[in-house]
Amino acid sequence: MITRMSSLFLRTLREDPADAEVPSHKLLVRAGYVRRVAPGGYTWLPLGLKVLRNIEAVVREEMDAFGAQEIQFPALLPKEPYEATNRWEEYGPNLFRLKDRKGADYLLGPTHEEMFTLTVKGEYSSYKDYPVTLYQIQTKYRDEARPRAGILRGREFLMKDSYSFDLTDEGLSESYKNHRDAYIRIFDRLGLEYVIVSATSGAMGGSASEEFLAVAETGEDTFVRSTESGYAANVEAVATPAPAEQPIDDKPAAQVHHTPNTPTIETLVDFLNANTDRKFTAADTLKNVLVKVKQPGKDWELLAVAVPGDREVDFKRLEAAVEPAEVAMVDEADFAKNSFLVKGYIGPGAIQSNGIRFLADPRVVKGTAWVTGADKADHHVVDLVVGRDFTPDGVIDVAEVREGDASPDGKGVLVAARGIEIGHIFQLGRKYADAFSLDALGPDSKPVRITMGSYGVGVSRLVAAIAEQSHDDRGLIWPRNVAPADVHVVVAGKDETLMSAGEDFAKQLSAKGLKVLLDDRKASPGVKFADAELVGIPTILVVGRGLKDGTVEVKDRRSGERVEVPVAEAVEHLVQVVTS
Amino acid sequence: MITRMSSLFLRTLREDPADAEVPSHKLLVRAGYVRRVAPGGYTWLPLGLKVLRNIEAVVREEMDAFGAQEIQFPALLPKEPYEATNRWEEYGPNLFRLKDRKGADYLLGPTHEEMFTLTVKGEYSSYKDYPVTLYQIQTKYRDEARPRAGILRGREFLMKDSYSFDLTDEGLSESYKNHRDAYIRIFDRLGLEYVIVSATSGAMGGSASEEFLAVAETGEDTFVRSTESGYAANVEAVATPAPAEQPIDDKPAAQVHHTPNTPTIETLVDFLNANTDRKFTAADTLKNVLVKVKQPGKDWELLAVAVPGDREVDFKRLEAAVEPAEVAMVDEADFAKNSFLVKGYIGPGAIQSNGIRFLADPRVVKGTAWVTGADKADHHVVDLVVGRDFTPDGVIDVAEVREGDASPDGKGVLVAARGIEIGHIFQLGRKYADAFSLDALGPDSKPVRITMGSYGVGVSRLVAAIAEQSHDDRGLIWPRNVAPADVHVVVAGKDETLMSAGEDFAKQLSAKGLKVLLDDRKASPGVKFADAELVGIPTILVVGRGLKDGTVEVKDRRSGERVEVPVAEAVEHLVQVVTS
Repeated sequence: MITRMSSLFLRTLREDPADAEVPSHKLLVRAGYVRRVAPGGYTWLPLGLKVLRNIEAVVREEMDAFGAQEIQFPALLPKEPYEATNRWEEYGPNLFRLKDRKGADYLLGPTHEEMFTLTVKGEYSSYKDYPVTLYQIQTKYRDEARPRAGILRGREFLMKDSYSFDLTDEGLSESYKNHRDAYIRIFDRLGLEYVIVSATSGAMGGSASEEFLAVAETGEDTFVRSTESGYAANVEAVATPAPAEQPIDDKPAAQVHHTPNTPTIETLVDFLNANTDRKFTAADTLKNVLVKVKQPGKDWELLAVAVPGDREVDFKRLEAAVEPAEVAMVDEADFAKNSFLVKGYIGPGAIQSNGIRFLADPRVVKGTAWVTGADKADHHVVDLVVGRDFTPDGVIDVAEVREGDASPDGKGVLVAARGIEIGHIFQLGRKYADAFSLDALGPDSKPVRITMGSYGVGVSRLVAAIAEQSHDDRGLIWPRNVAPADVHVVVAGKDETLMSAGEDFAKQLSAKGLKVLLDDRKASPGVKFADAELVGIPTILVVGRGLKDGTVEVKDRRSGERVEVPVAEAVEHLVQVVTS
Repeated sequence: MITRMSSLFLRTLREDPADAEVPSHKLLVRAGYVRRVAPGGYTWLPLGLKVLRNIEAVVREEMDAFGAQEIQFPALLPKEPYEATNRWEEYGPNLFRLKDRKGADYLLGPTHEEMFTLTVKGEYSSYKDYPVTLYQIQTKYRDEARPRAGILRGREFLMKDSYSFDLTDEGLSESYKNHRDAYIRIFDRLGLEYVIVSATSGAMGGSASEEFLAVAETGEDTFVRSTESGYAANVEAVATPAPAEQPIDDKPAAQVHHTPNTPTIETLVDFLNANTDRKFTAADTLKNVLVKVKQPGKDWELLAVAVPGDREVDFKRLEAAVEPAEVAMVDEADFAKNSFLVKGYIGPGAIQSNGIRFLADPRVVKGTAWVTGADKADHHVVDLVVGRDFTPDGVIDVAEVREGDASPDGKGVLVAARGIEIGHIFQLGRKYADAFSLDALGPDSKPVRITMGSYGVGVSRLVAAIAEQSHDDRGLIWPRNVAPADVHVVVAGKDETLMSAGEDFAKQLSAKGLKVLLDDRKASPGVKFADAELVGIPTILVVGRGLKDGTVEVKDRRSGERVEVPVAEAVEHLVQVVTS
């Protein structure tokens, strides 16, 4: 197939678009792959659509390969199923809602859990029907508060979403693994550098969950990875290793100190170091943070969280830890209602003696001694020992994670990194099956509640993620599997001999099954070279001055390497380059 | 590729769905191709999606073949461009409108004229850039008042829409012809019986326009065709042939008759036949119908339309004839304001002497004599001759078209038929280019206003249109180019030998590049045969009792013809059947 630039609907831009901040956005607009229509809404121009379709084809092949079956739902969906699961409300302003001419409520689908569940319920009834995995590649809608970075976070985007339906937890694990393996093949084929991070579930409810993140400085997602192993995780999912328990017998007795004007950790440590003969650090103190938590369908109740004083509570980790409960900071009214809480001097004593649930950081193990509040203004207690003077009601792992922390797998330390979420696999469990009573009739004629997995790939986002990883300051550099063409034939000159030689090469390459982008425009070689770099086809054939001496130049877009090739060998050489 | 029915997400139904009226809707639901989600909203199940994709591929190939370039717009579009062309209002309740979280107005695209025009304006500037034809295959939305017939008239549907951009009217004609030829190839490849009818433009404004209608009794569109030629047209577009002019000299003088109590054509004709010595028919009378017309941006004004008394004014033809003006019936208030109009006895005299525009049917040619109103209660005039006693201000062709009318091409007579609109090609002209000032800089540096064509194919509707034409009382019968598989291998029995023979055939056929649907279920042969008829794969291979004697049966779904084939020759036989 030959695409001729003389007639291609493509105009490249020399300037970055004013609203673009990240490289993929700048380059995809400049190279004429996409155009903005509205906030978070983009038009795919011919080259962009080719890349998108190439990615879509890889995703489809790998889904089909493990037996997933493609279907397609409408994007315009009735409210009722989303009301049944409460997501009509839960989605808040992220959901595009509308009414039809009769006033009935509709939404533009952000994800299709409800529809998939109802569809399987509509068709299947016996245990013999299961397992089944269904998927669709479909336009999705989310009314993002801040659509940004071009197609990286749009409001209308293309997504592959799939759902597995199994009779047993073991079956779900297998479906989950099938997806995980397929995703690895997909992202490998797309030439991406990515990590698989343990993740929390977000708004979807459930248990095991991993995210595929394309490593990119401009990514919105932060994660940590080990300096010495393959360990990677969302910050929310990092499990802090608990230190060994310590003997209690050798610890000095707890002692209350008058510590005037020490409501902060810093002032407290300074005071103790100035007024005792021991040296304390913030890590020796225990900070008791009060929050309030609301389990679904219950009232708000107080929760105390104890973390080492050198760390803050990470609110995202806290949210993930208490899910599906909601969590909020306490306010003055809460303190007023609970006068035993002495702000700045709260200790385990008042918390536990007043029936507040008290959870501590994994580092707070038996035998450790802490400086903490004495439940009295201007007083702290030193050497309060776990297992002797107090025992938390349980463990909660919500202290901030820092670079340099030990990796949970014991190998190396953690460093922070950023990535773009390109895939998410997730064991939903029975949440949606419960909402819609999705049962199979078992061999004993008793109903078996189905368990589900939910799996997504951001197909249109992948175009940007790949561009984000694969470009230089002159333009895009497409991996071969997604490039809009195999070879970019640049006719470097206007004379007839060059033009017809270029045309001839294009035809020969096309006859060999290669996709050719032929620059047959009457532009200067300089303009054509610059456009070739910008557009980013992996292999460039320059038909130029060398032709009269019987040679053409083959250039590798990524390495910049140039090779002179005799005209007679050029086609075979290019076929080898493209297919190797 | 082998699709196994033992795991295929497919459950066929024995009963027609309660809401289905037309065969395609009943069968597509019963055979498990689609499922209803909401009024006019359907889910494509695996087999349905395969058919849809096959059709989409044919459309794409034929568009690409003549140089049209594929792009893709969002479906969620900002209001502003549609306000600029006034379509935000004009679409009325047919448009799905919504607001985003910031209160900005959006719509779900019903067609994309505005976006295409703006996009070309954004990229192109010189006359050298033109012509260009762009297309997309995209989900469209229309809030139909009465979504019906399953996917035949949905509210969310897949459409190919394309637009040509030319510098000259001749260029537009050529682009139009390119599309017309491509549509003929598309619908031929899809195995459809269709007609190309002259059409009026509907709400889109412009000039030359043709519709492709798939012939089907259940179609919503009526058209007429000649009994003896290829002539076919929408009723709105039928041009009534004008008879030859007649001499005036031999006509008797006009004479006013007292015709008491004859406000209708029937009473008038009866009266004249009873009270004169001549024989009149309704066709000899001239009925003067008053309507009112409103040109865009102007006030309502009266219009008189004269048609032979044996025909009614066809309001649809009238609407088409006065477009872009609006038209409405006159009411009592209009009569009251214009007291010269004597209801039931209106004649050309009062109309023309009071400055009302007076247009007549093409049959009202010079020299014809008419019985018509005398502008006085209970009085008519006989032998009012065109060109002597009155001369209409012009011609208007809005009388009803009837079966038996002469075909406009002079060959045969017209008969009525029904069809499903599957394609529409349309010379838009400069309406949208004017709205957005889409100009090219000409060779003389002067701006050239671009002229456009608009072309649509109802991709998802085609699935239903094909099913409507191609089925019997046992199920669907897919044309080979769109069938979800090439061969349906039915294992007619449960024993291992048959099953493994079926599996073996499937593998051999798949190795030959054929798509195989393998019925490897543990169901009875009767159930499997019924499902094979229902699902409608064109060729069925039955692996059954004959196997022990070394034969299998190949059945043609459409003709019902069965052939016994030796096992050793079966694969080659099937390859021939499929590829011939």
